[in-house]
Amino acid sequence: MLRLSRFLPSTSRRVCDLKEVFWSGSLTFEHALSTSAANYDENASAKKFANYTVFKGKAALSISPILPVFSKPESGGSRVNRNGSVMLTFFPAVGQRKYDFTKKQLFALSPTEVGSLISLGAAESCEFFHDPSMKSSHEGQVKKSLSITPLGNDNGYFLNISVMNNVEKTNERMSVPVTKAEFAVMRTALSFALPHIMGWDQALTCHPQSPSAPASRPRVERPNPDSEWDR
Amino acid sequence: MLRLSRFLPSTSRRVCDLKEVFWSGSLTFEHALSTSAANYDENASAKKFANYTVFKGKAALSISPILPVFSKPESGGSRVNRNGSVMLTFFPAVGQRKYDFTKKQLFALSPTEVGSLISLGAAESCEFFHDPSMKSSHEGQVKKSLSITPLGNDNGYFLNISVMNNVEKTNERMSVPVTKAEFAVMRTALSFALPHIMGWDQALTCHPQSPSAPASRPRVERPNPDSEWDR
Amino acid sequence: MLRLSRFLPSTSRRVCDLKEVFWSGSLTFEHALSTSAANYDENASAKKFANYTVFKGKAALSISPILPVFSKPESGGSRVNRNGSVMLTFFPAVGQRKYDFTKKQLFALSPTEVGSLISLGAAESCEFFHDPSMKSSHEGQVKKSLSITPLGNDNGYFLNISVMNNVEKTNERMSVPVTKAEFAVMRTALSFALPHIMGWDQALTCHPQSPSAPASRPRVERPNPDSEWDR
Amino acid sequence: MLRLSRFLPSTSRRVCDLKEVFWSGSLTFEHALSTSAANYDENASAKKFANYTVFKGKAALSISPILPVFSKPESGGSRVNRNGSVMLTFFPAVGQRKYDFTKKQLFALSPTEVGSLISLGAAESCEFFHDPSMKSSHEGQVKKSLSITPLGNDNGYFLNISVMNNVEKTNERMSVPVTKAEFAVMRTALSFALPHIMGWDQALTCHPQSPSAPASRPRVERPNPDSEWDR
Repeated sequence: MLRLSRFLPSTSRRVCDLKEVFWSGSLTFEHALSTSAANYDENASAKKFANYTVFKGKAALSISPILPVFSKPESGGSRVNRNGSVMLTFFPAVGQRKYDFTKKQLFALSPTEVGSLISLGAAESCEFFHDPSMKSSHEGQVKKSLSITPLGNDNGYFLNISVMNNVEKTNERMSVPVTKAEFAVMRTALSFALPHIMGWDQALTCHPQSPSAPASRPRVERPNPDSEWDR
Repeated sequence: MLRLSRFLPSTSRRVCDLKEVFWSGSLTFEHALSTSAANYDENASAKKFANYTVFKGKAALSISPILPVFSKPESGGSRVNRNGSVMLTFFPAVGQRKYDFTKKQLFALSPTEVGSLISLGAAESCEFFHDPSMKSSHEGQVKKSLSITPLGNDNGYFLNISVMNNVEKTNERMSVPVTKAEFAVMRTALSFALPHIMGWDQALTCHPQSPSAPASRPRVERPNPDSEWDR
Repeated sequence: MLRLSRFLPSTSRRVCDLKEVFWSGSLTFEHALSTSAANYDENASAKKFANYTVFKGKAALSISPILPVFSKPESGGSRVNRNGSVMLTFFPAVGQRKYDFTKKQLFALSPTEVGSLISLGAAESCEFFHDPSMKSSHEGQVKKSLSITPLGNDNGYFLNISVMNNVEKTNERMSVPVTKAEFAVMRTALSFALPHIMGWDQALTCHPQSPSAPASRPRVERPNPDSEWDR
Repeated sequence: MLRLSRFLPSTSRRVCDLKEVFWSGSLTFEHALSTSAANYDENASAKKFANYTVFKGKAALSISPILPVFSKPESGGSRVNRNGSVMLTFFPAVGQRKYDFTKKQLFALSPTEVGSLISLGAAESCEFFHDPSMKSSHEGQVKKSLSITPLGNDNGYFLNISVMNNVEKTNERMSVPVTKAEFAVMRTALSFALPHIMGWDQALTCHPQSPSAPASRPRVERPNPDSEWDR
């Protein structure tokens, strides 16, 4: 069932169920899922995937959270080994309500880049650059950029990705207009995700029992490693 | 016990315990609950329902979150099969503190429509249209619309539902004034609900063990499917 | 250890550990805890209590969340039987750093009243009235009011409680100035608490298994009771 | 892989993976972790640590949440024995991309100080003072202060720590410029952490079963200790 919303501007604005769109013949999201899962442990079936996707006239954009990875537990505990991120996936339209997922371009937002996005004012822009070969001999060969620019009149933003490959001499660009309402969803979802991709939810909800900490324990005898007065 | 709040405008403003109101003879919410549960599995008794309801002179409005549905787990994991929503239920007053739940009208907000509502400015309006028969031969026969319009002076909003049935030639309308405080509750509850109805909470709190990811694992050997540099 | 914060206005501003203050001879919070627990089930030891308390020159104010109560699970599930609330506890100073908890006055904020508080603008006020005997022969005998008024210059708010007893001809009043920073803590804690006291967290995190909902299930055959198109 | 972000001002702005930086010879975070863990129970391996760290030209700043401690459960339940906090750790640069963690200075933000930070306006400042020997004979010997001052033009803030030791006649200062995006991360992470360091998450998600509270229970017979009308 299609929902038409008057609150959206006049550019193509349909937000459809991902499954319906992909069923019309493009490579499905499930295909990508099984390919990536091929090499990983049986625990992978416990994983859950969610995204928020907007489909527009020229391209679609899907955002999805990626969990952080904690180190193996040691005697002192475990800590974040690799931050999570928010993955942006752009893929182009190849016809009416047809999108080609094989031509996707990815951009993984770090926690700080998520911070930029959620604090973006109505008339503000921001831009991020990623180079996979920074500080190596291949630096500058492939460069990705993501920019977020206002649509105007507080109507939302353009999200633009550009992938320049100086070796193959290619430059792929995709642009997706995001309405004010859709950006509000992204801002809320990213604000929710941010503490999780940083691992703060796990740090704050892991409550080890403290049997050796009775209410009458004198405060001087055992120095608290958490105290700001220890060096 | 009734609570009178000076912060509310002068239209009828009582927010009463749902149970007290329904006890006076209208069809109860419990009745609706058991009817809908008749066809579903024994797991249904584990489900929990919560809502936020405001009762006004001409009608009442109840909002309630609906969970998303994930697909059956496969080797690669499971993904959102159907988004959740926030269900708005309008039902008319039929006397003093008496409301008729059998005459209810429903409107299910999608994530993007929730985004519209939570980002609504003090003097802004928005409007959504639902047609269950879009793109079929019955298109246009039944049409629902929900509009949110300011009361004025930053005092809150009218929430208005209209259901036009061109076959039966009926047009049912209900309108509920919502105070600034009540809308703050809705905005907060919907902002909380949004990541959940999109399944992001489940995607971000499902932490599979990673026994094969020691701190010293070299980064080159195993390509990370989550990497933005894989195509 | 006392923390002096320059960000607070010049009225008495110490925020001390609750335990240190009560240890100097006033009735302790623990006393109140055990009294109230006397009549209740053994499950009570699993309960956890948390509060946020500010101590000022003339009185102190403690805020604490109260969980909602769900009905016993039936075949269709369980629903909120009684909303939770946020309890405000005012108690007067009886000397330097000495407070008398036996003279406390309570005010339980409903979800809508919490909505008022969290949406209060810098120069705005709000006021709530509670009468336990509304609509009965004792109506008007005891009346409580809570008002929140700006300190001025975006410096915070006065929180004022007044308890009028027309039978005993008494009128107890207490007023606590809350700084901008302390109110930011209250606003954040109350915004966090609101979906929980409404039971929305439990409604949104209770994920019954759906073995009977495979990815290929045809959408037409089983009407979804959650659909906005069922009446 | 280094990410260059155009949204950051022109001062040194690299946000690197903590592990890469420490591997170049400074004392590692892990060292501090194991030292502090030496005296504590085997439960410590269950603990999880997460932080958000920004590395700038002269110093780095790491923020990390610290859980509250609840008392041992008694018949009435358990309550917060010691509030959690947010630990700020400043440590100086000693060369390009080299930081010396042994010279760190700590500052633990209380819930109210977190409230100051998250409500800080774009052009506002705040300052906190900590003295470990307040009200004792050593008062005034060691004093720490943390100040947050705007960079200007809504570009972010300086976070400055100063540790004065009047006995050793030393005054150590460190200053870290934090961009608007990085401060948005801190604001979001701290807003998320605040209810947790106050223990409100545990108070609101601990749901004891209420077998003795059927839907038909008369309200008068058992006084509710949570009622605002009990004294």
